[in-house]
Amino acid sequence: MRIAVLGTGEAGRRLGSKLVSLGHEVTLGSRSADNPRAAEWAAGHRSAHGTFAAAAGGAELVVNATGGLVSMAALEAAGTENLRGKVLIDVSNPLDFSAGMPPKVVTPDGGSLAEQIQRAFPETRVVKTLNTMTNTIMVDPGRVPGDHVVFVCGDDAEAKSVVTGLLRSFGWPEARIVDLGDLTGARATELVLPLWLRLFGIFGSADFNFALPRA
Amino acid sequence: MRIAVLGTGEAGRRLGSKLVSLGHEVTLGSRSADNPRAAEWAAGHRSAHGTFAAAAGGAELVVNATGGLVSMAALEAAGTENLRGKVLIDVSNPLDFSAGMPPKVVTPDGGSLAEQIQRAFPETRVVKTLNTMTNTIMVDPGRVPGDHVVFVCGDDAEAKSVVTGLLRSFGWPEARIVDLGDLTGARATELVLPLWLRLFGIFGSADFNFALPRA
Repeated sequence: MRIAVLGTGEAGRRLGSKLVSLGHEVTLGSRSADNPRAAEWAAGHRSAHGTFAAAAGGAELVVNATGGLVSMAALEAAGTENLRGKVLIDVSNPLDFSAGMPPKVVTPDGGSLAEQIQRAFPETRVVKTLNTMTNTIMVDPGRVPGDHVVFVCGDDAEAKSVVTGLLRSFGWPEARIVDLGDLTGARATELVLPLWLRLFGIFGSADFNFALPRA
Repeated sequence: MRIAVLGTGEAGRRLGSKLVSLGHEVTLGSRSADNPRAAEWAAGHRSAHGTFAAAAGGAELVVNATGGLVSMAALEAAGTENLRGKVLIDVSNPLDFSAGMPPKVVTPDGGSLAEQIQRAFPETRVVKTLNTMTNTIMVDPGRVPGDHVVFVCGDDAEAKSVVTGLLRSFGWPEARIVDLGDLTGARATELVLPLWLRLFGIFGSADFNFALPRA
């Protein structure tokens, strides 16, 4: 598949590299066409890079791996036309670190960033997933033992099915992909980040994830 | 120990019953001295019941098991003098269901209800715990298999130690009691409730809990 990964941070590059290794044609998107980090990544992975708009325009599926506070700006730069009809995987977290730790989760109007994106791009098929763990686990769930899970939610069933297919190709067993239903489920997963960050601080490591043992 | 459990809902009665079974002297506190549910519970458990103030006044340790939106009022009714110097275990969740599902977590000023309680009663030693699971699991962790956890946080180390002692007597192994540090950790656990409620809806059962497998 032709996939645009928007965002050149650790998560974006990690997801891009995994997608390349699975045979996808990846373009790493950033604000400018000459982003040095994007260029370096692209050279190292025989892949492309470009502006948000160029990356999204050429893609069948788009991953939003930008920082949550700049995601709306990045997607506006990508452009409504370039996102229309496409599956958009949103892995971002709207965290405001400006007042130090712990950061605040910025959920407009009690909703979620994913819903805000969906409202702004109604013809794009937003699926929220992977935002409740560190990027190394996203693409290599076997790093952590046990039946830990990945959450997925979205309003478009077919889009969710495309995304769960990708998650399975990352190594997530079907039984550990927890479908939270429609996109309002993103409110739940975005609000988990303060706990995740607290545990990260206590454990001194991001190599953990949530599991959900049941009676 | 002489323990006041404030709140006659399912959580309060469940915690009260467990504490009685462990040999503690429990008084169930409610708004009025003649609350029928409190009277019935007390009769069935050879225990006492009374107003929030009467219950707290006679206790060495107080459990806040009232609904999160009425906790401040309940604790004000209990009275500053009756809470002074005592360990207060806060198991409540500040959830507003007035606009239907999903409820909103009402965290004043980006903080937590537990911190709000601590600020209002500075000489009381607030410990937040047990609010991330259903009440049957609180007092019987063996109901659910696996290494699921209970979080604890608070500003007073000695108070936390009293509370973890109680948790161990409930059946929680030391290794599954996760100390989140000071009371700001309550922001993290209170914000987990939307995910908990979403999972409750999807699983059709509250018999699950969070585990934290690590690499």
